[in-house]
Order: sequence, then C-alpha cells, then structure tokens
Amino acid sequence: MSNELLEFDVIAEALIEKAQKDGAETMWDRKAALKTQCGFGEGGICCRICVMGPCRVSPSPDKGAQRGICGADRDTIVARNFARMCCGGTSAHSDHARDIVHAMYHSSEDGPFKIREEGKLRKIAAEWGIEEADTKETYALAHELAEMALMEFGKPFGTQNFLKRAPKSRQEIWERENIAPRAIDQEVVTLMHSTHMGCASDPESILRRSLRTSMSDGWGGSMIGTEFSDIMYGVPKERASESNLGVIDPEQVNIMLHGHDPNLAEMIAVASKNPELIEMAKEQGAKGINVVGMCCTGNEMTMRHGIKIAGNFYQQEMAIITGAVEVAVVDVQCIFPALPKLAKSYHTRFISTSPKAKIAGDMYIEFNEEDPLSCAEEVIKTAVMNFKNRDASKVDVPELKAETIVGYSVETTIGALDRVVNSQTDVTGTVKPLGDLVWAGVLRGAAGIVGCNNPKVEHDYAHITLMKELIKNDVICVVTGCAAQAAAKAGLLKLEAKELCGRGLKEACERANIPPVLHMGSCVDISRILHLVTLVANERGVDIAELPVVGAAPEYMSEKAVAIASYVVSSGLNTYLGVMPYVSGSENFMKLMTEGVKEWTGAAYVFESDPIKAAELIMADIEDKRTKLGI
Amino acid sequence: MSNELLEFDVIAEALIEKAQKDGAETMWDRKAALKTQCGFGEGGICCRICVMGPCRVSPSPDKGAQRGICGADRDTIVARNFARMCCGGTSAHSDHARDIVHAMYHSSEDGPFKIREEGKLRKIAAEWGIEEADTKETYALAHELAEMALMEFGKPFGTQNFLKRAPKSRQEIWERENIAPRAIDQEVVTLMHSTHMGCASDPESILRRSLRTSMSDGWGGSMIGTEFSDIMYGVPKERASESNLGVIDPEQVNIMLHGHDPNLAEMIAVASKNPELIEMAKEQGAKGINVVGMCCTGNEMTMRHGIKIAGNFYQQEMAIITGAVEVAVVDVQCIFPALPKLAKSYHTRFISTSPKAKIAGDMYIEFNEEDPLSCAEEVIKTAVMNFKNRDASKVDVPELKAETIVGYSVETTIGALDRVVNSQTDVTGTVKPLGDLVWAGVLRGAAGIVGCNNPKVEHDYAHITLMKELIKNDVICVVTGCAAQAAAKAGLLKLEAKELCGRGLKEACERANIPPVLHMGSCVDISRILHLVTLVANERGVDIAELPVVGAAPEYMSEKAVAIASYVVSSGLNTYLGVMPYVSGSENFMKLMTEGVKEWTGAAYVFESDPIKAAELIMADIEDKRTKLGI
Repeated sequence: MSNELLEFDVIAEALIEKAQKDGAETMWDRKAALKTQCGFGEGGICCRICVMGPCRVSPSPDKGAQRGICGADRDTIVARNFARMCCGGTSAHSDHARDIVHAMYHSSEDGPFKIREEGKLRKIAAEWGIEEADTKETYALAHELAEMALMEFGKPFGTQNFLKRAPKSRQEIWERENIAPRAIDQEVVTLMHSTHMGCASDPESILRRSLRTSMSDGWGGSMIGTEFSDIMYGVPKERASESNLGVIDPEQVNIMLHGHDPNLAEMIAVASKNPELIEMAKEQGAKGINVVGMCCTGNEMTMRHGIKIAGNFYQQEMAIITGAVEVAVVDVQCIFPALPKLAKSYHTRFISTSPKAKIAGDMYIEFNEEDPLSCAEEVIKTAVMNFKNRDASKVDVPELKAETIVGYSVETTIGALDRVVNSQTDVTGTVKPLGDLVWAGVLRGAAGIVGCNNPKVEHDYAHITLMKELIKNDVICVVTGCAAQAAAKAGLLKLEAKELCGRGLKEACERANIPPVLHMGSCVDISRILHLVTLVANERGVDIAELPVVGAAPEYMSEKAVAIASYVVSSGLNTYLGVMPYVSGSENFMKLMTEGVKEWTGAAYVFESDPIKAAELIMADIEDKRTKLGI
Repeated sequence: MSNELLEFDVIAEALIEKAQKDGAETMWDRKAALKTQCGFGEGGICCRICVMGPCRVSPSPDKGAQRGICGADRDTIVARNFARMCCGGTSAHSDHARDIVHAMYHSSEDGPFKIREEGKLRKIAAEWGIEEADTKETYALAHELAEMALMEFGKPFGTQNFLKRAPKSRQEIWERENIAPRAIDQEVVTLMHSTHMGCASDPESILRRSLRTSMSDGWGGSMIGTEFSDIMYGVPKERASESNLGVIDPEQVNIMLHGHDPNLAEMIAVASKNPELIEMAKEQGAKGINVVGMCCTGNEMTMRHGIKIAGNFYQQEMAIITGAVEVAVVDVQCIFPALPKLAKSYHTRFISTSPKAKIAGDMYIEFNEEDPLSCAEEVIKTAVMNFKNRDASKVDVPELKAETIVGYSVETTIGALDRVVNSQTDVTGTVKPLGDLVWAGVLRGAAGIVGCNNPKVEHDYAHITLMKELIKNDVICVVTGCAAQAAAKAGLLKLEAKELCGRGLKEACERANIPPVLHMGSCVDISRILHLVTLVANERGVDIAELPVVGAAPEYMSEKAVAIASYVVSSGLNTYLGVMPYVSGSENFMKLMTEGVKEWTGAAYVFESDPIKAAELIMADIEDKRTKLGI
C-alpha cells in the first residue's frame, strides 16, 4: 500500500479513537456488535417473500433442506432476491430522476428553478422528437420536455427514448433478448410481481427480467437524471476543487450536504451566498459559510460549482466526529440512520428534508419543489445559529485534503479531447480523438470505476489500487460516486497523477491537459459513461461489446450498484465486482451471471475481491478485445 | 372441530400417504426438512437491503446488537421489510390488472377478447368522465377506457380515479393523511426507493407510505382488475357449482387451471368447448374434457361459469397426487415451483404460460394477448393426448365435494337484496336493504374474510371456524380467495348453511334466498368488498370506519395479503390477521400497526391467531361500532 493510503488509515483511526473518547458510536462499533454475518443471507438462500417462511435452504445439493416450503430451490431463491435488489436500485435512481424532472416542470424565468443550458434543452428535445425544438419559447419547451420525461416512467407503450442513442447492433441485441426496457416504473413493478410468491421460478428468466429492469435505470432513470440536471443546473465543466475531511473549515459555519439529489443542494448553494445570511454568520463569530459535500450530493456540487467534498460514504460519520459541522443536511440515499444519534454527541444538527427519506432523531424541514428556497434558507439559518454551540474541546479537523480537477461531463471531455486534435486536418467536437488514441494503442482501453464503500473491504483501498494498476497500464479511468471521491483523496484527479501512468496515457494526459482519472459525477452519472462509450462505438462503427472497455465496482454496497452492474452488463461491458452480491448460494445462478449472460449481451459479471487480480483480469479482457478488433 | 373438518383432514392425510407411496414430495416433507424457522427473519429484524449486510439485530433492547451497520434499528428494519411486502403485493395484483386492461385494449367484435357487459363498460366510462360514454361505439369506447386505465398505472399527476367512489369523509381522511395514492407503479417505485439503503428510517413515515402504496392496490390495481374483468368476461351471477378434490372426474380429461388471471382461463374455457377437441378426447377413451379450477383462477371461473373448484392453495399438490390430472396449467401467483417435479411423479404435464412467471421443470407455452386462443388450444390438446399416459394404479380421487352457490358480485348481491324489498313502498337496485337489516339489528354487521392458506395454521380450520362463529352471531360474511374455497368445501356457501346462523341472519338468508357466506370472487375481488361497503356507507351517510364491518385474513401467507390488510385498514376497517407478518421484532412498529394507525385512518391491524378469540374480538368491535352509531 502507498503512503497515501496509510495516511487515510491513520486519520480514520484517529477519528474513530476520538469518537470513542467522545462517547459516540460508529459503524465499526456496530459491525463488531453484529458478530458473524448470517451465511444463509450472504448466500442469498434465505427467502422471506411470503409468510409461510422464512425458509433457508442449504447451500449444498448434498445435504440439508433443498427447497423452501413452496418448492423454491436455491437457484430460484437467489434469483428472486437478486431481482429485487435490481428493483430497489432502479427505483432509487429513477425516483431521484423523477424529482429532477418535477423541478424542471416547475422551472420558470424568475423562479428558483431555471433553465441554465438552453442548448442542451433544445438538443434533447430534438433528440426526443419534439417539434420546433429549436424555436419554441424556452420554458414552454422545458415544460413540454418535462412532461414527456415524466411519461418515460409510466407510458403504457413503447421503450425508453434514450435507447436510440446506442449503436444499432446493441439495440438489436436488446430487442432480440427482450431486454429493451419499457416504462421505468412498469419494469420495476412487473419484476416485483414476477418475484412474488408462486410466480417466476426459472432463474434464467428472472435474470433476464432483472437486466431489463436495470436497463430502465441506466438508459432511463439515470440518464434522465443526469441530462435534466445538466439542463437546469449546468453541464459540468473542468474546474479545480479539493477533497477530504480537511475541507471542513473550523473558522466558518460548516454545512455538510449529504445525499444525492441536486435540487436541494443547488438551493442551498444559492442560499449560502445570500449576503444577509453571511452577515448573520459573521455576527455569530464565524468567518463565513462553508458548504461542503458528502457522497453523491458532493459529486453533483463539485462538478457544477467546485464545492469541496468532505468525503465519501464511509466518512459520513467522521465528518461529524470532527466536531466542526454545524448542520448535516440530507435528502435521499446512503445516509446512515445513525447520523442523528451521532450528531447528538456533538453540537451538530441533523436535518432530513425529503418526504421519501424521513430520518428520525432530530430535525425535519421538508423540501418541496414549489417553494424550494425557504427550506434551504431555514437550513442555513439553523447552521448559523448553531455555530455558537460548538464545543471547542471537541473540534478536531484533520489537516488532510487533496487538490482535484473535476467536471468531466461528456461535453467537457470532448472539449478536452479537442486539444489533441490537429484542427487543420481534423474535426473538433467529437470523440474521434479518443477512438484514435485507443485504436493507435496509446491508450489500451478504458475503465469505468464506480460504486460505494463497504466495510467488507478496506475502505478506498480497492478503488485506488485498481485505478493505479490500470493507469499504469495505459487504461484511462472514468469514475463516479464514492469511487470518484476515493480517487480525489488519493490525488488521482490531479494533472500530476500522470506520473503514475504508463507512457501512452501519460502522453495523452499531457496533450489533453487532463488527469488520467476523470471525475464524471455522481452515481446517476454512470449514464455519462454509457453515453461516452456509445459515442465512441458509434464513431468507430462497432458494438459497445467490441470496445476495450470495462466497468468495475470494487467496493459497492447498495442495490443501486447491483442495478448498475446489470445495466452495464446489458450494455455490453464486462463488469468487475469486488464484493459478492447475495448470490453465492446458487452455483447455477452464479454461472448464469458469469457465463450465461454473455451469450445474450456479449458481457458478463466478474467477481474478484482482490483489486490486483481484478486489474490483471481487466488487462487480459482489454487486450483480448483489442486482438479481436485487430488493433 | 366439526366432522367436516375432520373429514378434510382424513382426506389430506390419505393423499399425503399416497404421495409418500408414490415417491412424491409434498410441502409437508419440505416443511419438515427446513426444521426451525429463523427467528430473526420471522421477527423482521434481519436486513439484506444493502450488501454491507446481512445485519440481524437483537429483538431485545437490553442485549445483543441494537443496530445494523448503517445504524438502522429494529424499528427501521421491520418497517422497511414490511413496506417491501406491500410493494410486492401491490405489484402482483396491479400487474395482473394491467394484463386484463391490455386484453381489453385488444378486444374486438370478432376477436377472442370481447366486451360482454356493455352496460358496465358505459357505466365505468361515465364514472371516469369519458364524454359521450353512453353513445360511443362499444369497442372505440372500450379502447379509450383501456388507455385511460393504463394511465392509472403511470400518470404523472393526480390520484386514482376510483377513490371518488368513497364517502367524502373517507376521501378527506386520505387527503389529510397523505395516503391518497397516485399512479400505481409510481407508488411502488417510490416506496422501493424510500426503503433503499440510507433513505427513510422513521417507522411512522414508512408505514404511512406503505398504506399509500397499498391503497393504489385496493382502489387502483385490484379494483381495475375486477371491474375490467367483469366488462370483458361478464359480471358474476348467482350460480350453482361444486368444490373440492372430488370435482376431478376420473373418466374425463382433467385440466387443472391454477393461478389468477382470467385471460388465460377464459380462453381455455372457450377452447374446451371446441367440438373437435371434445371429439379428440373421446377418441382417446375419455368421456369428455373437465376443466377444474384451483386457487383464484378457480374463483374467477366458478363465479362466471360455474366451473368447479378442485381446491385452494394448500391442495394444489393434492390435486396432482390424485393421479387423474392430465394437465396443470398456470399463469401467475401462488403456484408452487414444486409442481413440475411433483407432476413428474405422475403422468401430469405441468404448463406455465406467463412470461412474468416462467416456471422451470416441464412445458412452457406462452400466452399472449394478440393470439390467446392458440395457447389455450395447445394446452387442451396436450391434456387430451396425455390421457392415455395415465397410470390407473396411481389414480385415487377422493369422493369429496360440496355443493355451492357462488357469484355474489356487487351487482348480484344488490339483485338478491331486492328480494327483501317491499317493491310497493321501497326502491329496488340499491344496498338500502342491507343497511336496513344492519340498522335494524337483524344483522349485527358484516365481515370480509379473505386470504390464503398457511402451514403455520391448520389448513382451513381458522377460516371455517371464524366464519361459523360469526354467522352464529348474525354477522354476514363475504369471502374471496382461498377463504372462499374453504367456505365452499365446508358447505357454508349453501342455502342450508342458514341452519348454522343466528336467528336474524337465518331470516335474512331465507328472505333473500342466499347463503350466509357470500362468495365474492378472487383476491383482486376484495375490491368488490370495498365497493359494497362504500355503497352502504354512502347510502347511510356515514364513513366506512363507522360501519359495523371488519376485515379478516385468518390464514394468509402472501405479500398480496399484506397489501390487502393495509388498504383495508386505510379504508377504515379493522383487519384481523391470523398469522403474524414479519413485524414482531419491533414493539414500536407493532404499536403503530395496532394503535398508531387508528389515529390516521380510524382502523388498525389486529393480530390474533386463535379464530375463536378473533371472533370474540370481532363481535366486540362490531357491537362497539353499533353503540357509537346508536343502533
């Protein structure tokens, strides 16, 4: 392990010790208290889908109970549990996107929700076939597009609009394999139905339906979430920021934004610039108001505003343990329900804001799209007025932060690629240079590295190790979510990280003036990766599955990541998972995931917990793809 | 226990012994092999929602792990698991309804899907505000209504159309408590989102959202399923039928229809009358083709065609063990995945037909709404040609069946009530006589008794005992699902069952010429009960919660039943559950269910496994309601 990693650990350990001293409980205490995890649950062979159960079958075909009361065997039970994780993940991403679209539906010239990217609005409206997309009045068009997007969740006929972006060959595969997703909500509901007691038992059909539901996430909810956020809040552009707990500033009022949905975060960013509120902070003895991000809200905000990121998933408690956070304000997903209790060990106020994710234990200030600023202002006032309650003896912010360059939306990435184009002889504004670099072998390929942290894995170690191994081998990495933040903290989002690269990637980084690891955003922004890969495939006239590109989630923990893996595999990219989902109890289902699915989509799930080995597998995979392409 | 119950048991035991002799495995073997059920799972305190887990917390606040890794405590974990059961149940009913609506969308004058009840079509079209509903061409109107119904699953704005049926007071409660459901699919998805890792942790908000999602089942999916099935396949009318395993006829080709969706069953009923196929059966040495129903498909078919019911949920294996079933054909829900294996111990062919519920192990013949008859004919041919493969030495059909009167749709029930009206002085065609009987005290009240079988309970015993206790006390019972079939087998659906009633109910049965237990259909048809109760409340000018009416599910096992209980409670009726859902691990959540919810909806869940005690509680409940009404 590198020194950077060791440094992380030292900090983490110091803060955990501080927590113990402060009488605060952390996830590590809870993990210890839970003792051994249940083998049936881990294997996915425990079924609680009906109340005849719970039934737990043996992982072995030779001994123990072979079937649940209804007759479901280990293959069926594992398949159903897996499918329902895809339902949970797809629901989370897509329901987040629904809120973004609702905000756009409420957008207006003079309201808090505005259209910032008229060009992108018109482009997507045209892509979706709205007539006169280039001439309609901006907000009339925005509302029409928003209504159309809301129908993507519930339209009775047809498949997702964004599928048409994919190469023809890929669209044909989806059609052939019956995994082209219809309305997003319908796909979830019909899969929940299929996995109800006494419905589907055939693991293959359950896996296929899981892929289709997950596809409605990747090419539906997530893509809508990303594109519509861009239209309203701006397409991310290259910008400098900082990351890690050290961005918490002991001299300012610190507001930690945690969750996923940019609606709330954008309003807080706006409100935090209100001179009256800043003045109020100064009256309270603070130098100003410091908004810092956590998890994917952090990614959204750093990508669009350069707001600093305090940390990723496993650090959400540590930020509070610094004793210098006045308010932790959250919306949806990945928020420890432990936070309100932890906050009470300090002066921190914990504020939940979403009716979808009411978190018990401290304050609830509802955010609603019709009057979004009032919630944001109340949050900031609460933070400002709480500054005086800080206990100086409990404040300990580690001096640790890394510089980053973030903001690599597809548009910005293409802009960066233009720097390597000879504008005398070649066109600009396309992904052609990226294809050229890969085809020339300067880059061997690309990897999308995404996902959470998981205490089953040493935090950030797998993320960073995998990235370092790959860039060393001239594989460019695009990253989102907590993986992106791991990269940020390890200094991999700096131009100087080129020194860790192989010769080809280093040269490409120098010419394009980019880091070798590109921050592409939050977890819904994996749709950006899909989009970029699609553009390259289309430009080269090949299918996505032919590209020397892989997906990886070395430390994931959430159902969203299970859905992501499933839509990435469906999109034709082998996906390397560092944590086992709950499927190990069925050899047959595992085989379907690692082999069977390849026959349908041209890609498969790969399970490898060791990041060094995963890197080796990925390199072999990429070189194999190159050989087949004859490059 | 009565002799009838004992007789059931003798038959069951004899068939289980036969199965052992035949080398066939039954649910009882599997239950024994599973040994003790997991206490964490039963208590609902095991969480597998993310892959940091599984986490199992202690049921006790005094010892053991108090929280999962993320900090979710027992209350949160139980609430989330419960919510997801509501999601599964709502999805199952509603996705079934979607298929019915799709069939109506494909209906045509000369196609297999027809409009049989033009009057009901026009009535519901008018109810939903379609213009010129009384004059439009039938199929144009049907297609317009079908498209409108499909939007009930996915419309971006507004709440369910059928909510307007409810008393104003009830609609105001739903509005006030924020449990008026929007689009069905959206409600499921947003609740799956809320229960994702790191979202809602407040048990109260999770329960409220579970109620709203379940409401989208009862007043959405299920009501659409019922009403649209009626439009296409006919409003059930009073008719005689028979029930129990003895309806399997050893001299005929027996086709067992099992599942839920009337689309397939109706097509099989049509095809089974094809003279060519009957001739073919005779050529094979059979006297004819005998279609028998199982579970809710059986209920749908007996209600509309008088097709005999072979049994309910726990008898699905026994029917095959008789050795006289040529084909078991299934669509969706409550089908043991064990059946294909069991069928192989006999000559029975097992055929699954729904892409939503592909069941591995024997044949799959896909049913699709564009060419539904071809699947039906293939099923029947398979059965006919399989007759010769019967092993006479394995045939043993118990001579046990009961006569029944079925078909009590709301319309038919009102028709029956007209018999007690003095047509000189009073109007006919309303529920007023029912209200009059209750207000006069001739009937003390009514109970909807519904739900499945569950091996945690002696099969059918709780159903029948509860019904007998209630009718003895002048409480009329309306029944659906496997509860209805339990009543059928016990002879409670006969006119003669009046002898088991108290004096008031007996007299009412005599005057109206109805049994004291009214078969109202399948599990989606619980919407008929809601509708009937609503009509009575409206007629009396009171809220549903004021009526001396209860719901009960003494032996349920499925997620559908959990959703049903939740929408019945939301509708204002106390609901008596004979089996504990997975909530016992959280005292706080139990309290919310049994007390807290009363403050929101005026009704609560009641847990009581002993049917005698449940009857006592119900009588006290009903008398209390009467007192409050001053009647």
